[in-house]
Amino acid sequence: MSALILDGKELAKTMKEEVLAAVAEFKAAHGYAPSVAIVRAGEDPASVSYANAIRKTFEGAGMGFALHALPESASQEEIVRVVAGLSADPNVHGIMVQEPLPKGIDEAVVKEAIAPQKDVDGVHPVNTGRLAQVAPAGRPAGVLDFFVPATPAGGMEILKRYKVELAGKHAVVVGRSNIVGKPMALLLLRENATVTLAHSRTADLAGVCRQADILCAAVGKAGLIKGDWIKPGAVVIDFGVNFVEGKMVGDVDFASAVEVAGAITPVPGGTGPMTNIMLMLNVLQAARLLVR
Amino acid sequence: MSALILDGKELAKTMKEEVLAAVAEFKAAHGYAPSVAIVRAGEDPASVSYANAIRKTFEGAGMGFALHALPESASQEEIVRVVAGLSADPNVHGIMVQEPLPKGIDEAVVKEAIAPQKDVDGVHPVNTGRLAQVAPAGRPAGVLDFFVPATPAGGMEILKRYKVELAGKHAVVVGRSNIVGKPMALLLLRENATVTLAHSRTADLAGVCRQADILCAAVGKAGLIKGDWIKPGAVVIDFGVNFVEGKMVGDVDFASAVEVAGAITPVPGGTGPMTNIMLMLNVLQAARLLVR
Repeated sequence: MSALILDGKELAKTMKEEVLAAVAEFKAAHGYAPSVAIVRAGEDPASVSYANAIRKTFEGAGMGFALHALPESASQEEIVRVVAGLSADPNVHGIMVQEPLPKGIDEAVVKEAIAPQKDVDGVHPVNTGRLAQVAPAGRPAGVLDFFVPATPAGGMEILKRYKVELAGKHAVVVGRSNIVGKPMALLLLRENATVTLAHSRTADLAGVCRQADILCAAVGKAGLIKGDWIKPGAVVIDFGVNFVEGKMVGDVDFASAVEVAGAITPVPGGTGPMTNIMLMLNVLQAARLLVR
Repeated sequence: MSALILDGKELAKTMKEEVLAAVAEFKAAHGYAPSVAIVRAGEDPASVSYANAIRKTFEGAGMGFALHALPESASQEEIVRVVAGLSADPNVHGIMVQEPLPKGIDEAVVKEAIAPQKDVDGVHPVNTGRLAQVAPAGRPAGVLDFFVPATPAGGMEILKRYKVELAGKHAVVVGRSNIVGKPMALLLLRENATVTLAHSRTADLAGVCRQADILCAAVGKAGLIKGDWIKPGAVVIDFGVNFVEGKMVGDVDFASAVEVAGAITPVPGGTGPMTNIMLMLNVLQAARLLVR
């Protein structure tokens, strides 16, 4: 038996059309485009290439894009000054600060310089905190508006669009990064799943994974999770982006997993293509928040 | 076999001496006492009695205490104005807003009016977010200073003082409130436990509990967790405060649990007495933060 492929690439195409329509509607209503500003210090190759990809996506969608590239030698005060300036600039709706920042810069201070209502990457602790405090689905939220990091938001969107039932299910999230694992766990909890957060220190990781009705991998280890770690019929969301001999692979060993899982995201073509879409939606949301 | 009793009452006594010494030292160094201000709107009996208990504890310890009691009819703007005033007042180090607030008041707005560095109850989302983002024990924190709600902080202190090993253990937290369950889960995760958050929608709650090396109950249902839900030798932390026929009982059925668990907090005399101590420590921490 072979699992249903959760086709993130196709879903992202569909959603792209929805985003383009929403952007056009926003521009018609307000006379300007939702805009993102990216702040980078130094020339980390992955950051440069990610910023270029965002520029292409945003400009292609008629959205605003500006890159503020500081030298590797920029001080913390300089970086904070740029971020604070963008936070105060009414023409900037979303702000992203690229990591890694140069050595000696306190990322915590820089993150908190982003105005929470422009924090489209969901890295400011107030946004993390609102997500952590939000009431379960179906109850009044109990918190102010907030942003969710684009990658886990994309994973949740796949689950939602494929109508995967979450309430009462056991979700296991492997990996506890601030940008994927922890927010994914909080999002699943909000949907009333029972949630286990597993990580590098987990004893019997295979056994823990085998309990999952929904298994999410965000650990950055190529093919770590084998088919026999998966409960037959489980839904597998693979956030892993690893390169093996020049080929992009996930954290899940796809060949063995696809024979056991009920549904699975491929890598590439699963969660990856959704990330940019969710980022665009976050910038649109930020622009709308500023209109209010 | 009978479990080791994790004696919160005795531990609180010991820690009280430590707090008194630290308060005396602070006063000697700075010439004033660490102070807390409590804001209440209305006369909810549990809130009134809790505020009185805090007053007694704080005044007994030579710490400052002020109650700002507003009428039940107070508007959101009035409450926010009082909280914002205390946030700006250099003579106030810690602020607590009692819940429930009167109907129609948006608690999210009131919470966010508390200056994060005075939020000794750990209810501002920026403090929740910093806790959620903090790096695992042994690595640089990655976040700015933050406050943890007193009740889960007290549970962690019991685990720490009794030298319960957490890294690599499976911790199950039953209950996902913002004041106990969720922060407790995040604190256990920080100590490198594998953490499962279970709740009212969890399927086979007994089976999930039976997996726990560390089982924490914070659900508010008298005696919900029976001895046969507990793995033999597990450590049980009971945050429940329930009244049955005038008698205070926890969420764990103590009589059956004590025969199975390796160690257990009683109710009363377990996590309860630790809460006030941790609150005093939070106010001391807030006073120190303001000195910097």
